[in-house]
Amino acid sequence: MSTVYDVTAWTIPGSSVTCYDDIGAVINSMIADVKAHQTSQSAKPGAVIYIPPGDYPLKTRVTVDISYLTIRGSGHGFTSLSIRYNTSNTSAWYEINPGSSHVTVQNTDGNSEAFIVTRGGDPRLSSVTFENFCLDGMAFTPNENSYTNGKIGIRFDSANDSAHIQNMGFVYLEHALIVKNADALRVTDNFIAECGNCIKLTGSGQASTISNNSIGAGYVGYSIYAESFFGLLVTGNNVFPRGKSSVTLVNCTLSSITSNRFHAFYPGVVNLSGVCTENLISGNHFYRQPETYGPFVGNNNGLDDLFGLVQLNGSNNALIANHFSFNVPSGSITPSGATPTLVLVKSGDGNYLASNHFVANVAVHTVVLDASTTNTHVMDSGTSAQFQAYSTSYGFRATP
Amino acid sequence: MSTVYDVTAWTIPGSSVTCYDDIGAVINSMIADVKAHQTSQSAKPGAVIYIPPGDYPLKTRVTVDISYLTIRGSGHGFTSLSIRYNTSNTSAWYEINPGSSHVTVQNTDGNSEAFIVTRGGDPRLSSVTFENFCLDGMAFTPNENSYTNGKIGIRFDSANDSAHIQNMGFVYLEHALIVKNADALRVTDNFIAECGNCIKLTGSGQASTISNNSIGAGYVGYSIYAESFFGLLVTGNNVFPRGKSSVTLVNCTLSSITSNRFHAFYPGVVNLSGVCTENLISGNHFYRQPETYGPFVGNNNGLDDLFGLVQLNGSNNALIANHFSFNVPSGSITPSGATPTLVLVKSGDGNYLASNHFVANVAVHTVVLDASTTNTHVMDSGTSAQFQAYSTSYGFRATP
Amino acid sequence: MSTVYDVTAWTIPGSSVTCYDDIGAVINSMIADVKAHQTSQSAKPGAVIYIPPGDYPLKTRVTVDISYLTIRGSGHGFTSLSIRYNTSNTSAWYEINPGSSHVTVQNTDGNSEAFIVTRGGDPRLSSVTFENFCLDGMAFTPNENSYTNGKIGIRFDSANDSAHIQNMGFVYLEHALIVKNADALRVTDNFIAECGNCIKLTGSGQASTISNNSIGAGYVGYSIYAESFFGLLVTGNNVFPRGKSSVTLVNCTLSSITSNRFHAFYPGVVNLSGVCTENLISGNHFYRQPETYGPFVGNNNGLDDLFGLVQLNGSNNALIANHFSFNVPSGSITPSGATPTLVLVKSGDGNYLASNHFVANVAVHTVVLDASTTNTHVMDSGTSAQFQAYSTSYGFRATP
Repeated sequence: MSTVYDVTAWTIPGSSVTCYDDIGAVINSMIADVKAHQTSQSAKPGAVIYIPPGDYPLKTRVTVDISYLTIRGSGHGFTSLSIRYNTSNTSAWYEINPGSSHVTVQNTDGNSEAFIVTRGGDPRLSSVTFENFCLDGMAFTPNENSYTNGKIGIRFDSANDSAHIQNMGFVYLEHALIVKNADALRVTDNFIAECGNCIKLTGSGQASTISNNSIGAGYVGYSIYAESFFGLLVTGNNVFPRGKSSVTLVNCTLSSITSNRFHAFYPGVVNLSGVCTENLISGNHFYRQPETYGPFVGNNNGLDDLFGLVQLNGSNNALIANHFSFNVPSGSITPSGATPTLVLVKSGDGNYLASNHFVANVAVHTVVLDASTTNTHVMDSGTSAQFQAYSTSYGFRATP
Repeated sequence: MSTVYDVTAWTIPGSSVTCYDDIGAVINSMIADVKAHQTSQSAKPGAVIYIPPGDYPLKTRVTVDISYLTIRGSGHGFTSLSIRYNTSNTSAWYEINPGSSHVTVQNTDGNSEAFIVTRGGDPRLSSVTFENFCLDGMAFTPNENSYTNGKIGIRFDSANDSAHIQNMGFVYLEHALIVKNADALRVTDNFIAECGNCIKLTGSGQASTISNNSIGAGYVGYSIYAESFFGLLVTGNNVFPRGKSSVTLVNCTLSSITSNRFHAFYPGVVNLSGVCTENLISGNHFYRQPETYGPFVGNNNGLDDLFGLVQLNGSNNALIANHFSFNVPSGSITPSGATPTLVLVKSGDGNYLASNHFVANVAVHTVVLDASTTNTHVMDSGTSAQFQAYSTSYGFRATP
Repeated sequence: MSTVYDVTAWTIPGSSVTCYDDIGAVINSMIADVKAHQTSQSAKPGAVIYIPPGDYPLKTRVTVDISYLTIRGSGHGFTSLSIRYNTSNTSAWYEINPGSSHVTVQNTDGNSEAFIVTRGGDPRLSSVTFENFCLDGMAFTPNENSYTNGKIGIRFDSANDSAHIQNMGFVYLEHALIVKNADALRVTDNFIAECGNCIKLTGSGQASTISNNSIGAGYVGYSIYAESFFGLLVTGNNVFPRGKSSVTLVNCTLSSITSNRFHAFYPGVVNLSGVCTENLISGNHFYRQPETYGPFVGNNNGLDDLFGLVQLNGSNNALIANHFSFNVPSGSITPSGATPTLVLVKSGDGNYLASNHFVANVAVHTVVLDASTTNTHVMDSGTSAQFQAYSTSYGFRATP
């Protein structure tokens, strides 16, 4: 039996449903076929399911419960649906939808997810791959600018190893990608924008990489979020607005955020929350300005300008060799009249901040130490006037 | 209709021209076919055009004026044509040309470009992808070592969104890739060498990434060039000689050059020219030596050793945590007898240089501040003797 | 003739051997076919050989002696064989082997390698590509936890240009990938784990990149090793235990190790040995803890805690903006009672260490200078008490 499946060439046994009716049903049928033919415990290499360029409605959630399955298309197919929504008349447009290998998420089965990857028992699912197709949550009511429509592109819901999400496109989903209990996951070279939340790593996880992605969540969601992770590497991503946060780590340890570009409309761009320890933030570019696009003006993430572009909670984190630009008109700063905080060390012992460059259009505190903090080291990260310590336990050297 | 096209299987309606006569005419015919079959504004997912390994002359420029088109091959197919040209006798060689999915650029239509991507009206072209084939400008007269033959591989000539140039090979083109007015472009994992210019981003642009490429332009051209860009991320590239510049930014803002390796034969390796503000240059390795390959000895880019390996024009840029190696025999330094400058802050206010390591075979000025500069901060980037300030407005701390 | 080959569709002339008997013999036959049809020196574009998902024994070594050959599958297919080996009963497991395009290395031809890439004469082999399949060394005796079984996945054994190893999976091989005399090599997006050694660059080489890989060698081998290399860029890799070293450079110059995450169970995580000059180590996260997995407890790499997590041999190297975490119970430190060294500058002149953050559960020496060292510069990399200099030739500034 062939292990290479094409959604446009598949007939579901006993059914007339095609990929143009419900690609979800077709892919589930293919997975059932893989399982029917791969029954020996020692010979289950999985398969590749190909989605050629085309428009495919997904009405039934796909359940991936086999290892070594690759689902791939020929193009991430992103286009801006936000511009479409906020354009009064698109009747003269060449095209109005995303494209390439274009799967529209329109579940009629009561589920939120287009794809769920889950299996009980042993071993964990290994090497499940999604590659080079488009998941489109489509127009919705009442307010597309919220990016919240309850839809989820891909959810990994049981522990998994060496999964790979590559070259995908995601648009207009409340959650593009949720991965629970990941080990050695790679999320790389994807285009994930105009989604409520882009990448969420939940439960716990280790030794994973999020790299080289173009990412931008909505104002109510996260561009990159991880909880209880150990050894996450976030590098080389171009993260654009308007996520409520570019990177939020909750209770994460020994992770790295390096060489990224972060453009944000709100405070809390990188937020190490809960108890985060021994993480490195280095070589990143941070830019915070107010919302620039008319239809979104007035939205915010609920944080004020004392929150910090970076906030550190926990001990022994390092913030080294980053650039920060802050450009918010004084009248737009909250609380009104406040001196904005660019980096807030909110708690913890032994945090280390060195060689960071700060640029601002108004007077700012480059680094603020909460009263609870101890043994913080701050070097070449602002003048004495820009540094504000509510604690007395720190080392400080002003930028000369 | 299938959306998967193979150039070797296509017949141009009413013509006997094949991909072995003119792959340009074949691909244009395929694009016309896509358009003929995708006439509904709401159903235009585009297509994928496949170029199997083979040798294909391109005599007619391809015009890509549809979104969601992927043109892909099976291999970047680079080989060094420079070594071929400068080898006296190649008659015993196994092969003498590039290969894999190998398109030879030999326009007979009066155009310079192999591919032009352009469309007027709305929306911008989205998600046009070039992937994994070879564009070869071929032997030319009178001097192949110039890398200048008037040929252009791919030119995006109208505003575009989320384009992707990946795993391509380019060789012997005066311009490998020119992209005008890019938004969320990714140029990643390409092999672009022995071209006059490699990557040029023109007009203006934003939120784009150039990463993980192997790149090397000619002595008259740019390896990476961007103008009026906002939020460009240049990271993880291995840039070898002999470009007149590894990275030139003109009037760019809030961009990042991080974790690259730059090997250069001339000054001006990274050149922030015009008015460049709030850019970050961090974690890069710079190496400048004289030309090492006989046939090219004597060429230069017209800049002398007072120009700087890095020159900064504009305000509030950051240069942090880089390594610089300079190894030029004293007799080869220009102007004769000069003390070479490694970093020149040529203009602007508030530039920040910290924790940079400088190694040189001769006495150098690690950092020079022009008289026009104000409020520059220089820390741990050379000794007092190595620092030269024509301005009095700066902070300085010598490397201990 | 087609240049697109599928191992499942190929018949070896005069033989009944199929890819299910010996994929090595099949691929060798395909390469012979390519050569038989591409006899003109000026028309040798090579081919692509496709390995669909499936289980394929390799009994005969493949010799790649043509340029522009791509061998690709549809999935890296990694799964943990170490967990399989150390689980007492896997009878209820869904699957017990790696998968996707799964090649089992079981040479019966007396060779160690699954693939060897080699050719004498001119020019060097160009653009040989391995992509997206799995090389599995399989269960072996007497001790799978050694990861040493004499098997080699891919060996490049003659000079080569612009090779590309991408999206591959390697498991249970004593050597996953060995590349001799590489120029402009890219090893990117691979999954290489539970191998004795992962990536070895031997002989000499230049202008190459190892990026975005998930890597972890065995306790007797190297995760990333390079000798006599110039201009190597190691960036964005997530390197997990338990390699005897994460990155070892021997006699390498002007190379870069940036934005990586290194998790290690032994000293010598990054080892610049022999005479290494003018290399940059920046923006990396280092974590050293003891072995965490029962079956491997008691193994070590023979180095004690005075060796350094980083050891520098040679001159003018830079170590800037890194984070180090050390968490070893005092009773497990060797020599017993010693104060562990985190960075040892073992030899050389002009090494530069700035803005490094050190966290440890016990008293440590953050930086130690050997008596033979001269002109080392150490800034913001520990307190005076944490700094130990056996030389008197250095500059030091304590972290405030």
